[in-house]
Amino acid sequence: MEKIQFKAPHTADLAALRALAPTFLVYVLSFVNVAIYWNNHHHLFGACSKIDGRVMWANLHMLFWLSLVPFCTSWVGEHHLEAVPTAFYGVVLLASAVAFIGLQASLVAMKENAALAAMVDTDIKGKLSLALYAIAIVMAFVNQWVSDVLFVAVAMIWFVPDRRIEKRVASG
Amino acid sequence: MEKIQFKAPHTADLAALRALAPTFLVYVLSFVNVAIYWNNHHHLFGACSKIDGRVMWANLHMLFWLSLVPFCTSWVGEHHLEAVPTAFYGVVLLASAVAFIGLQASLVAMKENAALAAMVDTDIKGKLSLALYAIAIVMAFVNQWVSDVLFVAVAMIWFVPDRRIEKRVASG
Amino acid sequence: MEKIQFKAPHTADLAALRALAPTFLVYVLSFVNVAIYWNNHHHLFGACSKIDGRVMWANLHMLFWLSLVPFCTSWVGEHHLEAVPTAFYGVVLLASAVAFIGLQASLVAMKENAALAAMVDTDIKGKLSLALYAIAIVMAFVNQWVSDVLFVAVAMIWFVPDRRIEKRVASG
Amino acid sequence: MEKIQFKAPHTADLAALRALAPTFLVYVLSFVNVAIYWNNHHHLFGACSKIDGRVMWANLHMLFWLSLVPFCTSWVGEHHLEAVPTAFYGVVLLASAVAFIGLQASLVAMKENAALAAMVDTDIKGKLSLALYAIAIVMAFVNQWVSDVLFVAVAMIWFVPDRRIEKRVASG
Repeated sequence: MEKIQFKAPHTADLAALRALAPTFLVYVLSFVNVAIYWNNHHHLFGACSKIDGRVMWANLHMLFWLSLVPFCTSWVGEHHLEAVPTAFYGVVLLASAVAFIGLQASLVAMKENAALAAMVDTDIKGKLSLALYAIAIVMAFVNQWVSDVLFVAVAMIWFVPDRRIEKRVASG
Repeated sequence: MEKIQFKAPHTADLAALRALAPTFLVYVLSFVNVAIYWNNHHHLFGACSKIDGRVMWANLHMLFWLSLVPFCTSWVGEHHLEAVPTAFYGVVLLASAVAFIGLQASLVAMKENAALAAMVDTDIKGKLSLALYAIAIVMAFVNQWVSDVLFVAVAMIWFVPDRRIEKRVASG
Repeated sequence: MEKIQFKAPHTADLAALRALAPTFLVYVLSFVNVAIYWNNHHHLFGACSKIDGRVMWANLHMLFWLSLVPFCTSWVGEHHLEAVPTAFYGVVLLASAVAFIGLQASLVAMKENAALAAMVDTDIKGKLSLALYAIAIVMAFVNQWVSDVLFVAVAMIWFVPDRRIEKRVASG
Repeated sequence: MEKIQFKAPHTADLAALRALAPTFLVYVLSFVNVAIYWNNHHHLFGACSKIDGRVMWANLHMLFWLSLVPFCTSWVGEHHLEAVPTAFYGVVLLASAVAFIGLQASLVAMKENAALAAMVDTDIKGKLSLALYAIAIVMAFVNQWVSDVLFVAVAMIWFVPDRRIEKRVASG
C-alpha cells in the first residue's frame, strides 16, 4: 500500500489541529480509497487460479495510478477547494478505476478464470464510478464541494467488497 | 509496519544527541507500541482458520489508526510536555486499541473461529488499556508526565503477547 | 519496490502542473523500469526451483542499484537536459542491467536450475540494453535528448516479460 | 529492509557528484550491513522449524536497532570524520550485533531447533564483531578513519553468509 503522509504542525495548540482538518479529511478519503482497492484486489485474486504476463502488467498499471494518490493527497490537502488539484485528484481516481477494470478484464480473459467471468459480467458499480469521477473532474472547475461530495459518494459505493465475488468464493 | 522516523541533527556534538533524547524516547515508545500490535496481530491471526470481508475492514480500520502513529510521534517529539500533542497521541493509541478489540470481535463472530472465542472471553488487558488511555488523555491537559507514565504503563502491560492465545495455539 | 516520489507543487494552477511535466515523465520512466525488473524478477524466480547464498547476494546487488533509481529520478527531474544527471541515470540503469545479468548467471550456475539455462542462452535483449545504455551515457555529454530516447527505447524493448521463460514455465 | 536515503543535490555538475561521495560511501556501507543482516536472518530462520513469543520479541529488538541505521547514515553522511556521529554509528551497529546474537540464542533455546544449536556453538565471527565495534566506538574520539576501517572490516567478515548453517541446511 502506498504511503500517504501528513506532516506534524510546527505549533502545539488546538488551532494547529484545526488547521490540519482539511488535510486530515483528504488523508482519510485517500486511505479509504486505497483500502478499497486493496480489499477488492484481494477478493479479485482470491477468485482466480492463475495469472499471466498481461495480468502482471495490468496490475502494475493500476499500481502506477495508485502510486500518485499520495501526491494528489498532499496537493489537495494544501490547496483544498481549488480547481486544478481537485480535478487532478479526480483524474488519478478515474485512471485508477479504469486500470482496475482493465485488471479485471485481463483476469477474465484467461480461460482458467472462467468462474470469475460470470461474477463480474454487469459491473454496475465500476461503470457508475467512472461516470461520477468524470462529473467530479468537470465540476472541479465550477464548485469543488460538488467534486468532494462525489469522491466521498464513490468511496461509499465501494466500501463493501464486491459481494458477487465474495459469495462465489465462499460457496466455491 | 508503519515507518516512524526521526531526523539527523544539523550539528555533530554530544549536545545534538542530548537534544534528541525526548524525540528518541517517543520513537522507542511508538516502536514498542507498533511492535506490540504486530505481535498480537500475528498471534490473533495464527489462532484463526478463516477471515471474511468484515475482518478485512476491521483490520484496515486498525491500520488506519496505526498509520497516524508516525504523525503523533513527530509531533510529540518536537513538542513534548505540551497538552494538545500529548492528548492527541493518547487519542490515536485509544482508537488503535478500540480498533484492535473490534478486529478481535470480527474474528470471534465467525463460527469457524470458535476456538478463539473461548480464549478472548474476559480480555482484562484490553479493557484496562482503554481506561488508562482515557485517563492519559484527560491528564494531558493537567500534567503531561502523568500521561507519559500511563502510556509506558500500558505498553508494559502488553509487552508480553497474549499468553491465553499462545498457549492454546501451542497445544492445539 | 523502491519508492519513487515527486512532491506536490506549492501553487494550485495549471502552470504548476505544466512545470511538473518533466518530473512526471522521468517518474513514469523510472516506474516502468522498476516494474520491468519486478516482472522479470518474478518470471526468473518462477522458473527456478532453488536458490543459494550466491543468488541472494546477486539479488541484493541488483536491489542496491535499483535503490538508487529514486535518487536519479529526483535529480534528473529537477535538472532535465543536463549532462551529469542524465549520464548518472544511465550509469545506474547500466549497473542494474549488469546486476540482473549477474543474477541470471548465478541462478543458471546451480545445477538444480538446468531448465533455466536453456531458456536464457542467447540473451540478445540483455546485451543490446547494455550497448544502448553505454551509448546513452556518452551521449549525455553531447545531447541529452538522444540519451532520453535511448532510455525509452530500452524500456520498450523490455516492456514485454521474457517470452522464452514464460513459455517454458507455462508448458513445464 | 529499512529505507536508507540520500538526497539529490541542488546543482547538476560533477562537483555536486564529488561532494556526494562521502554520503554515497556511507550509504553503500549501511546497505551492505543491512543486506548482511537480511541474508543471515534468512539463513537463520531457514534452519529453524518453529518460533515462539520470545523469538518474535528478539526479532523486533533487532529490527529496532536496524531501524536506526538510516538515521545514523544520514548523520554520518553529513558529518563524516566527526567523533560523535561516528561513535553513534558504532553504537547502533554494536547493538544490532548484540541483538542478532540474542535472536540466535532465543532460537537455539527452543528444543525444536536442536539442529541449529550445534551449528552456532562457537560463533567466532559474532564475538569478533562485538570486539571490533567496541574498539571502533572508542577510536571515534581519537581518529575516525580507524573507526571507518573497522566498520568496513566487520562488514567484510560477514559478507559471506554463515557457511556452517548453509551447509547443514543444504545437507539436511
